[in-house]
Amino acid sequence: MPVTKEFLFALATVAAKETLPRFRQRGTIDNKYEIGFDPVTEADRAAETAIRALIEKTFPEHGILGEEHGSVRLDHDQVWVIDPIDGTRAFISGLPVWGTLIGLKEKEIAKTGLMSQPFTGELFFSLNGVSYLVKDDLEQVLRTRETTLLKDATLFTTTPHLFKGKERERFDRLESQVQLSRYGCDCYAYAMLAAGFIDLVVETGLKPYDIVALIPIIENAGGVITCCDGSRPEKAGDIIAAATPELHKAALDIMNS
Amino acid sequence: MPVTKEFLFALATVAAKETLPRFRQRGTIDNKYEIGFDPVTEADRAAETAIRALIEKTFPEHGILGEEHGSVRLDHDQVWVIDPIDGTRAFISGLPVWGTLIGLKEKEIAKTGLMSQPFTGELFFSLNGVSYLVKDDLEQVLRTRETTLLKDATLFTTTPHLFKGKERERFDRLESQVQLSRYGCDCYAYAMLAAGFIDLVVETGLKPYDIVALIPIIENAGGVITCCDGSRPEKAGDIIAAATPELHKAALDIMNS
Repeated sequence: MPVTKEFLFALATVAAKETLPRFRQRGTIDNKYEIGFDPVTEADRAAETAIRALIEKTFPEHGILGEEHGSVRLDHDQVWVIDPIDGTRAFISGLPVWGTLIGLKEKEIAKTGLMSQPFTGELFFSLNGVSYLVKDDLEQVLRTRETTLLKDATLFTTTPHLFKGKERERFDRLESQVQLSRYGCDCYAYAMLAAGFIDLVVETGLKPYDIVALIPIIENAGGVITCCDGSRPEKAGDIIAAATPELHKAALDIMNS
Repeated sequence: MPVTKEFLFALATVAAKETLPRFRQRGTIDNKYEIGFDPVTEADRAAETAIRALIEKTFPEHGILGEEHGSVRLDHDQVWVIDPIDGTRAFISGLPVWGTLIGLKEKEIAKTGLMSQPFTGELFFSLNGVSYLVKDDLEQVLRTRETTLLKDATLFTTTPHLFKGKERERFDRLESQVQLSRYGCDCYAYAMLAAGFIDLVVETGLKPYDIVALIPIIENAGGVITCCDGSRPEKAGDIIAAATPELHKAALDIMNS
């Protein structure tokens, strides 16, 4: 049975039922690790439980890798990769730039992806080689912008503090050559890249669940996304996403110089 | 004739008619200055024209200070201060964290303020000593969080790059003492401070139209907002906004150390 748009929307709906009522509530925030600050809300856990239940019911043979509740059947050709709330810091700060990420890898390649932002009512998704945004029942096909030069590009990263040592120097050099850079936004930046409003996202230290869902959304909108060494991005780590191949190469050259 | 809630909503409506249809369109972006990058969209100019027309019609004697179209009657006791799109960089990047800011000063003190985010359908405003958020016809009173210690605080700034020299050292020291810091978000950060989801906003180099509308929203939600020298914030420049007086003092002490 193939994955349908209706199934992706159903996943977004069950997730939103858990996330949205808890957004902008002054609820409990646990620390995932004793050292540092990595908030996980009840919403995160409940949403992943709901997403997994629907996948298990519909595709019981598929593998699942989730941020909150671990992995099953990773040796299957089809593996779902879930981040119930990407951008937990945005979430706890009340900002509508977090998202629910659900991707599907087929033989290790991300082919299908969904990023849902239920507060704004936006669903970014990619299915069968095309990327879309649905909002208020209007569906539009996503295309990246045609920016090829760094001097014309808008660059996003979560925060430059995540780059250390030589990597930070390279990032600073990249940042100095673009027209505009902005921090924050997590998954929302990739969605805006696919939609043609920004041109580059460069991040470091990502986990597969941070990026798998976004890969097909970007690739099928005309963008290029790889690890910083130029390899396929599914394994995550350091990521460069760009609106065009030319811009991707320019950023890759600097991040590897 | 007093300013009413209905009048504030009417201002938001005429502004949204100009901003929202141009949001996420691939339109013309002029550079305000030849050197540097300060985008101003058609939306910015058209929205200010619409806001000013409604103020002129309703309160013809009042003064008006706007970002785009200059100032009139600044010697009047009542002066409206307008930034039709605060966060133009967010706007051109497709991010729903820009806002239309409209404040009213009475004898130099900001008493009434509105921040409208029409894409999310949020109206943050303050009138007659109370601050509110209206969304989907639901009205709620805003209260800041009770955070008193830096170690428990979430801090926002547009970007640390705006702080130079000693100021940057002080900002970095402040940042190192808070629980969580985030960049970006412009006016939206102040709205989240008033709503009780973040605790501190520190910014430098602001103009009056960047801040006047937000002052009553924060003060009437229980927060404290001043210039970094502790004086009234209406003149703008360097600004510290905090959820509580204790937190404000802690941040002020570091930024003046």
